[in-house]
Amino acid sequence: MRVSDRAKERLEKCFVEIQDHFRDELLPFWLTHGVDTKFGGYLTYLDKDGNPTGETVKTLVCQTRMIYTYSSLHRAGLGDGKALRIAQGGVEFLLDHFWDDQHGGWYWTTEQDGTPLNDNKIAYGHSFAMYALSEYGMASGDLRGMEWASKTYEILQALASDNLNGGFYEFFERDWRKRAKGRGGGDRKSLDVHMHLMEAFTNLYEASGAPIYQDKTLEIVDLLFRHMIHPQHGTGITQFSPDWTPQRAIIFDNVWGSDREADDSEGRPLDNTSYGHNVEFGWLLHHTINILGLDLGAYKERLRKLCDHCLKYGIDRQRGGVYCEGQHDGPARERNKEFWQQAEAMVAMLDAYQIFGEDKYLDAYENIHRFVFDTMIAHDVGEWYPLFDENNNLLRDYMAHAWKINYHTVRSVRECERRLSKLVYS
Amino acid sequence: MRVSDRAKERLEKCFVEIQDHFRDELLPFWLTHGVDTKFGGYLTYLDKDGNPTGETVKTLVCQTRMIYTYSSLHRAGLGDGKALRIAQGGVEFLLDHFWDDQHGGWYWTTEQDGTPLNDNKIAYGHSFAMYALSEYGMASGDLRGMEWASKTYEILQALASDNLNGGFYEFFERDWRKRAKGRGGGDRKSLDVHMHLMEAFTNLYEASGAPIYQDKTLEIVDLLFRHMIHPQHGTGITQFSPDWTPQRAIIFDNVWGSDREADDSEGRPLDNTSYGHNVEFGWLLHHTINILGLDLGAYKERLRKLCDHCLKYGIDRQRGGVYCEGQHDGPARERNKEFWQQAEAMVAMLDAYQIFGEDKYLDAYENIHRFVFDTMIAHDVGEWYPLFDENNNLLRDYMAHAWKINYHTVRSVRECERRLSKLVYS
Repeated sequence: MRVSDRAKERLEKCFVEIQDHFRDELLPFWLTHGVDTKFGGYLTYLDKDGNPTGETVKTLVCQTRMIYTYSSLHRAGLGDGKALRIAQGGVEFLLDHFWDDQHGGWYWTTEQDGTPLNDNKIAYGHSFAMYALSEYGMASGDLRGMEWASKTYEILQALASDNLNGGFYEFFERDWRKRAKGRGGGDRKSLDVHMHLMEAFTNLYEASGAPIYQDKTLEIVDLLFRHMIHPQHGTGITQFSPDWTPQRAIIFDNVWGSDREADDSEGRPLDNTSYGHNVEFGWLLHHTINILGLDLGAYKERLRKLCDHCLKYGIDRQRGGVYCEGQHDGPARERNKEFWQQAEAMVAMLDAYQIFGEDKYLDAYENIHRFVFDTMIAHDVGEWYPLFDENNNLLRDYMAHAWKINYHTVRSVRECERRLSKLVYS
Repeated sequence: MRVSDRAKERLEKCFVEIQDHFRDELLPFWLTHGVDTKFGGYLTYLDKDGNPTGETVKTLVCQTRMIYTYSSLHRAGLGDGKALRIAQGGVEFLLDHFWDDQHGGWYWTTEQDGTPLNDNKIAYGHSFAMYALSEYGMASGDLRGMEWASKTYEILQALASDNLNGGFYEFFERDWRKRAKGRGGGDRKSLDVHMHLMEAFTNLYEASGAPIYQDKTLEIVDLLFRHMIHPQHGTGITQFSPDWTPQRAIIFDNVWGSDREADDSEGRPLDNTSYGHNVEFGWLLHHTINILGLDLGAYKERLRKLCDHCLKYGIDRQRGGVYCEGQHDGPARERNKEFWQQAEAMVAMLDAYQIFGEDKYLDAYENIHRFVFDTMIAHDVGEWYPLFDENNNLLRDYMAHAWKINYHTVRSVRECERRLSKLVYS
């Protein structure tokens, strides 16, 4: 695409801010925070100043996301070797303590010293184990990366796949029996898990070149569009029964992304979609298209719908930033502004601008970028605040938590930097 | 059910014949034929007199079916330990030569000494590996049985499952890439393979008690009825595209059950169903219902349809026996009489008689029993002839071949003996 001089100016301003934030704030913060020097692995609860809160539970999601992040930094040539060493420390703690030698699979949480705490097996965490270990393999050349990523893939196929309806079950007891129905999650499937399986399978393919992971990535992409994307609106549907009948989205006992208001017992309305998941799915799918060498043309209109819905309903034009959730074709319902939706929407809007060349995507990117840089980033600390209300009042102020860690922020800044660099210097 | 005295008389006559054939002909034949004393494993090509033909290729289907048969004989208390020793010899040859250490999975054929010949990986053969090894585990207590049965299950899930449409792909190259479309079979799914996966998963569950195999068996049962059984007629549909659209059934390059006429290049008509598969599926499903402790009532009408179609169109009322194939609601098209359809229909008709208590099933059993005992069995040799035309002229006369071995005949006679004993002495 041809980027106008005026657009380049706007992009360059953002590029400089992104670079400064990355090099002077975010990267230094994560090269000096989060490592558990006593037991290994990561301590992921940090207060508003970046100090450990004293909470020491280790979650599969955070340990693996940290491994992913440090590995990806090293792959990007950052961290002077320190990022890789931190990643390796995380891998060793994970292998030593999170794998269940008796039943297979990864525990959901452990105590600081690695003693299993919640021994459930959750597909969501397993998708991040595959994503992280394959990224670590690519970053390090350490064969344990793909060995354990493959092992995770194999146990997920053997014990979590649904050979009747396609896709995967998501919530299991330690011995891989399905958890109870309802809040146990044993009878639910979700866009969230399957989207992250696409992300994980894509990485398995990139790391190994094995045709099976190419096939699996394609199967999941088709599965997402067959069942989990609204046939008319092109937006994501959140939760399903095993046969893919949409269900009101409920909060499960084993929860991640729990900072927002608890739902009522009925769950969220059926006519509800997540701006953050839609745009994250959009750019992750674009990444998958690139890694697998698929025909972008065949997916263009689907990518556009995922972004345009956020553009139309999800962005606060007055105060900046992206809301959480709303109707498939109607206004936002949950108007708080959470860190991860901002992070994913920034990448997605730059992607859309690159693909479609329309200024509305640049406008949207700038809107979110400004909200993030002017309001969400704790510049003096280095990380992002987690949550604001629709009037941009700070609701939570910690830097890291049970599931908020550097995965969304570092990945977003790294991915935005790459895209901005390409757009500015094209 | 209450069996009338007249019916008991008829059943007792058959029972005596079955027992005599089993003890005096079939069992002695298989305790003295088929073992490869030079290299181990089994030599499965035997002429009309039961002598080795000189053909020495070893097929995965025959080696595993033999292991199953000898193991099942020992479990039934037969063979005085010799059956188990023969089974064990087969297992050792299989583990030593058929497993692919590099890519995983079982080769399709080997030479007599175990050198791989056709190194394709075929789901059909893998289903029999699971069936045989779990049966061997139950017969012997040898832990290698379930170890390798599980390993087969795991590799099938990891490399052959279709996470988009459900079920399994069936034809692969040595490295598990899908084979070519069409005659390569890479883009086809079948009732045959999925029915035998139900049989295998049921055995895995019986042998291990592991809940995952119970789940998998139920998934396959539901999958069969959702896609592979005609919604109106309740009869089996033979072949499908990966998304379960019925296709004209073609013959594949890697073939089993190839004794009948080769199809024309267009494949068999769409309106075509196999009497043998329908009734075999019926009684195997009844076995699954028993092993899993399912509610028979929920399946009764489906079992009835599978049997009644054969009763209405598949039986030669004049000359006895069961034809091969015909329309879903119309006359038989392929009217040869092959050994395995007789074997399976005998068990199925006794099952139906036990379940429904109607004389028409006893009549059908008697019809097939008479055809088998008066025409098909080579009483002076001990095994069954493979193929007759509709006028009961012998078309093939060997006792064993690339895929005809003791699996259908011994299992049928054993299963009929059990049912007849129960009916006669109830």
